[in-house]
Amino acid sequence: MTSHSLTSSATASTTSSAIARLVKPRSVAVIGASADPNKTSGRPVSYLTRHGFGGAIYPVNPKVTRIGDLRCYPDIGSLPEVPDVGIVLLGAERAHLAVRELAQRGTGAAIVLASGYTETGADGARRQAELIEAAGSMRLLGPNTIGLVNLTDSIPLSASGALEMEHFPAGSIGVVSQSGGILGALLSRAAARGIGLSKLVSTSNEADLDLADFIDYLADDDATRVIALYVESVRHPEKFRAAVLKAAAAGKPVVAFKIGRSEAGARAAVSHTGAMAGADAMYDALFRQVGVIRAQTFADLIDIPAALATGRVLHGKRVAVLTSTGGAGTLVSDSLGMSGFETPPPDAATAGRLRALQQGDHAALDRNPIDVTLAGLQPDLLRGAIRALLASPSYDAVAIIVGSSGLAMPDLMANAIRDCLPESDKPVLAYVSPHAPQVAAVLNQRGVPAFSAPESCAVALGAMLAAGALASLGASEPAAVPEVDTSDLPPGSLDEAAAKQLFARFGVPGVREIVVDNDADARSAAESLGERVVLKILSSTITHKSDVGGVAVNVRPQDVPARLARMREDVSRHLGRTGHTGPAPTRFVVQEMVEGGVELILGMHRDALGTAILLGMGGVTAELFQDTTMRLLPAQGGLPRDEALAMIRALKTWPLLDGYRGRPKADVEALADAIVAFSAMAAAMGARLVEAEINPVFVLPAGQGVRAADGVVVIGEAGP
Amino acid sequence: MTSHSLTSSATASTTSSAIARLVKPRSVAVIGASADPNKTSGRPVSYLTRHGFGGAIYPVNPKVTRIGDLRCYPDIGSLPEVPDVGIVLLGAERAHLAVRELAQRGTGAAIVLASGYTETGADGARRQAELIEAAGSMRLLGPNTIGLVNLTDSIPLSASGALEMEHFPAGSIGVVSQSGGILGALLSRAAARGIGLSKLVSTSNEADLDLADFIDYLADDDATRVIALYVESVRHPEKFRAAVLKAAAAGKPVVAFKIGRSEAGARAAVSHTGAMAGADAMYDALFRQVGVIRAQTFADLIDIPAALATGRVLHGKRVAVLTSTGGAGTLVSDSLGMSGFETPPPDAATAGRLRALQQGDHAALDRNPIDVTLAGLQPDLLRGAIRALLASPSYDAVAIIVGSSGLAMPDLMANAIRDCLPESDKPVLAYVSPHAPQVAAVLNQRGVPAFSAPESCAVALGAMLAAGALASLGASEPAAVPEVDTSDLPPGSLDEAAAKQLFARFGVPGVREIVVDNDADARSAAESLGERVVLKILSSTITHKSDVGGVAVNVRPQDVPARLARMREDVSRHLGRTGHTGPAPTRFVVQEMVEGGVELILGMHRDALGTAILLGMGGVTAELFQDTTMRLLPAQGGLPRDEALAMIRALKTWPLLDGYRGRPKADVEALADAIVAFSAMAAAMGARLVEAEINPVFVLPAGQGVRAADGVVVIGEAGP
Repeated sequence: MTSHSLTSSATASTTSSAIARLVKPRSVAVIGASADPNKTSGRPVSYLTRHGFGGAIYPVNPKVTRIGDLRCYPDIGSLPEVPDVGIVLLGAERAHLAVRELAQRGTGAAIVLASGYTETGADGARRQAELIEAAGSMRLLGPNTIGLVNLTDSIPLSASGALEMEHFPAGSIGVVSQSGGILGALLSRAAARGIGLSKLVSTSNEADLDLADFIDYLADDDATRVIALYVESVRHPEKFRAAVLKAAAAGKPVVAFKIGRSEAGARAAVSHTGAMAGADAMYDALFRQVGVIRAQTFADLIDIPAALATGRVLHGKRVAVLTSTGGAGTLVSDSLGMSGFETPPPDAATAGRLRALQQGDHAALDRNPIDVTLAGLQPDLLRGAIRALLASPSYDAVAIIVGSSGLAMPDLMANAIRDCLPESDKPVLAYVSPHAPQVAAVLNQRGVPAFSAPESCAVALGAMLAAGALASLGASEPAAVPEVDTSDLPPGSLDEAAAKQLFARFGVPGVREIVVDNDADARSAAESLGERVVLKILSSTITHKSDVGGVAVNVRPQDVPARLARMREDVSRHLGRTGHTGPAPTRFVVQEMVEGGVELILGMHRDALGTAILLGMGGVTAELFQDTTMRLLPAQGGLPRDEALAMIRALKTWPLLDGYRGRPKADVEALADAIVAFSAMAAAMGARLVEAEINPVFVLPAGQGVRAADGVVVIGEAGP
Repeated sequence: MTSHSLTSSATASTTSSAIARLVKPRSVAVIGASADPNKTSGRPVSYLTRHGFGGAIYPVNPKVTRIGDLRCYPDIGSLPEVPDVGIVLLGAERAHLAVRELAQRGTGAAIVLASGYTETGADGARRQAELIEAAGSMRLLGPNTIGLVNLTDSIPLSASGALEMEHFPAGSIGVVSQSGGILGALLSRAAARGIGLSKLVSTSNEADLDLADFIDYLADDDATRVIALYVESVRHPEKFRAAVLKAAAAGKPVVAFKIGRSEAGARAAVSHTGAMAGADAMYDALFRQVGVIRAQTFADLIDIPAALATGRVLHGKRVAVLTSTGGAGTLVSDSLGMSGFETPPPDAATAGRLRALQQGDHAALDRNPIDVTLAGLQPDLLRGAIRALLASPSYDAVAIIVGSSGLAMPDLMANAIRDCLPESDKPVLAYVSPHAPQVAAVLNQRGVPAFSAPESCAVALGAMLAAGALASLGASEPAAVPEVDTSDLPPGSLDEAAAKQLFARFGVPGVREIVVDNDADARSAAESLGERVVLKILSSTITHKSDVGGVAVNVRPQDVPARLARMREDVSRHLGRTGHTGPAPTRFVVQEMVEGGVELILGMHRDALGTAILLGMGGVTAELFQDTTMRLLPAQGGLPRDEALAMIRALKTWPLLDGYRGRPKADVEALADAIVAFSAMAAAMGARLVEAEINPVFVLPAGQGVRAADGVVVIGEAGP
């Protein structure tokens, strides 16, 4: 889209140093700054001053001579030095003029806040092109952005009203948001909870710098340990993939909340930042493949990073729930159980250690939740209990409940936990049952992720498990692209037989079949294929053969001529009725009957995000449950074989292939081979393969392979 | 469980007036009151005083003569009058002594806070029985309760630490919680958000007064408009059902959050309040049948009642999203879309009205979200926009976004909305994007439910739709219980043929079949049943016939003797191998082959909640997706026919019965008849029917009926 969207390593390193200059400037010019801090255009200077920016601030406004203690300059030309960053507060009609002047002076990057660009339609798109042209080699953040906030170094380059708050704890969560308003929401929500962030960037229209550029930057940023993304659309999937894998290699998990999951949301996003989203399932595939942890609710986008920022590691699913109030302990246990976690009672030794801490009373110390009751709310006792649970071989994590009693003693639990944390690397989380924001903030500041929703404990632990699996990502090689000549195929739809021949060239075997055009050949073909056969019309224009009476199964060879006669009649009648204009098909295909196999669908989906391979369980019931899974093709080559196997196991009906209820185990190895071969075909043919689907492919019992039984292929014009 | 759990109307009215005295007492004795307000036992007197209770407070404690300004009494006997309520703060060892004395003096009700009863095992259960005995005809709340809070009349009868807060807005949401800690959490959370409650009760162990008693009370309570429940276990399902239906008839929706959805949660609940929960799916069935709206997350238990308490009515699914910040508008739209709501653009007239309000700028007024931008944040403009949307025929509800700019102007949006609310009864909700609790509180106080999670708008609107459907509840009559004599059936398992004969007596037709014990009869039976038949061994002890080789399908009559010989051999071999001790079966059943039908399962499930009828789609794929639905039998009779139809349509695979993809429509009427007949059988036979399942029942194309093809019945000993 822009001259900056290249991915060569030279450009990447240029981008990286440009972002470093943008995020940590020594001097900032604010073009169109107002002296009124209550106006949006008055905020950036006010926030820079108020939150303690140590560098030079240069307001630019011909109508004003001073803003607070600062000298205000009449124009960009009169600035005493070349600024590292220019914040442009002018409207869309004039912003490009300021951008051109900043670029001419050699400014590192401009942040353009105005809206009225691609998100508003054709006129806006023209304005955005003009802006890009004006920037030349200077980098651009925005337009339509609220800017960025560098909390590590106390540098707010933003007009977000959230910066009205007095204090923002700095921490290790880096945030990239494609919405400025959401940046403000995350900033104020995290601050109120005592959760520290490192950098926040709103990329919005992404005329130049995008999501991937900042992920790449944060992957190198020492202050950042976790990366949180608010995504409307990934504009450059390959750059995104590379940046996320770089972060993973640096041990930094990436968490994303993506909107556009529904039609309504996708429409709203276009109107918001001009983003054209691909199918949401494609994002699922992309995120899964590069290990992005997907936040399911907006709150998860803070909760999950807060848990991951602790750096603690979850090695299993057994959670101790420590509480002084039964109800909330039950609530958290129930939610953990719903998410597949276990809450086993303490082992004998641990129960003994716990009982030694507390006598009499009705404390429940040999069960889980471990309930110390109100009487147990004493520093020594809590420390003892937490130590016992952290040391216990029965548990992989500890969830601690703060009840209403915590209201009166906001430090009690936080201090007890803090004292014990160094003794173990097990995750420790807290659920705060009453409304007690100060208690939660103290806990977060002490390094204990504290949640106000009981469900968040399970969500956070689930994400910690997923983050633990990141190390094994991206190791497998893409499948080689085979050298198969397909130059003989003309553009247009292939008929069923030709489609399966194409699949076979790439290594996906089809059912045995013979194409015929007369009764005698049909009968002898049937005799050579078995006791019963399938008959179909052969046509590249009729896609739903059975709807027109063009399919017969379970036909005995001796009945073939009669059945063909009926089929000719049925098809002609149907075609006449539907106003079909082409000739009635004269060719037929006689196929072996395949029995005892499991039916699946193997197909391809292309949109803005790339090309995905789709595997689905066949049959109407599975179809009603939409039991399908997708994987995006890598940049080069077909799907790695382990991803093909992972796809098969990701089907909800995977047990049908795995010997469920005494069925024979299906030939999963052959199916994986077929997926890899099909994906390699898609990789080899590229954009020329407009459409391709095998439906059904029969997977026979182990050792007997797979058979493509029907298929569709559409070939496009040869590319350049 | 107790002498108070009767449901006759005389008792109900007694209970109701006893609860009225408990909830709004003129005098309260506090037994075991401490003079130290920081101790749990010091809290009730402190809270009664501090929150302005206008009646008499009588602390009882032999060691103290005064608590604050109050005279403290040495014992219950020396109280100057009979108190309406006694709050007993003594431990489980002594609480029953105080309860006995209170009862002897004629106190209305005692609230017992001590734990150490049924929730701790056998000893505790004995103590609880003792407590009940001591209470006699005095009513009991608890034990193991935190008490109750009457916000309508400023009467806190509770030791909940949440009452440390200064102010609690009174409102129209009544809360019954089976956990004391959760009561505190709900109380403090609602107060912090400006959401008003009427009464809160923690019933906990429910030795006497239970969930249903308080629902019944709140159904009559003028101050209560919505009832919110925190449920661990419904101990008296019939009482619960009656109370909820009474509330529905009074136009008061009931919202429930129930834990024990997972194994871990169910175990924790037993240890918490001694509650033995039934299967969670049974609760789903119960709630669905009486119109209880189920909260899926704990936050929903406040959010949904807050929306319902407005009394506004949602007539459709079209929502206008009004925003000044694009990102949050997109976020809410996306979440609405995911929940099946629509966000259409404004009609031309509405768009015109909106455009007339605002010129220039980049406001997006002909789309949805309707984005007035920062420039639109002016009282007149907002009022104009809200009025236009409320008046628009395009929308059934309006969701309003408050952005970071709201931080500086907490009243702006709240006042604009309040001014417009009287002009329409459409629901108006708000989503507050930044952390801005004061803004949300102001909105709630003005009657606009305000949420901090974007997903809550969709949740609340979904509940409003469900509440709108409550009026049509409970109208249908249970099916009559047929007079069928089953006294001839001996206790034990019936064989397949006998099971189907029992189903047939109650009106569920079976497949045609003939029981035989020799080859010749088998062959002639087969000849009389069709071209192909099914053969099965007939046994009341072998439940999985196909596992032992005891089933053959698609057998031609002439092949029957040979196939039977092989079956005898297979079965003997299998039984020998598995160490089966009974004789090999000598009887067989020859059945017609049923083809072209859809396979379902029709069964029965019994647990603490009652008897449920279960309908499930057959076949392994549907089984993997657990596509089943349940309905509880009414107190008298079988399922009403409309519930049977609703069950069928509730299956996710309902399209398979409804002509999906050119299939014939199935005989849904006959299936509904079969469900009703099966349920009437369960009602007629009561506990004597230990187990009953038809698996499969074939549903043939419309007009051709259903056929029970196999089944299991276990008969118990005759009841008293």
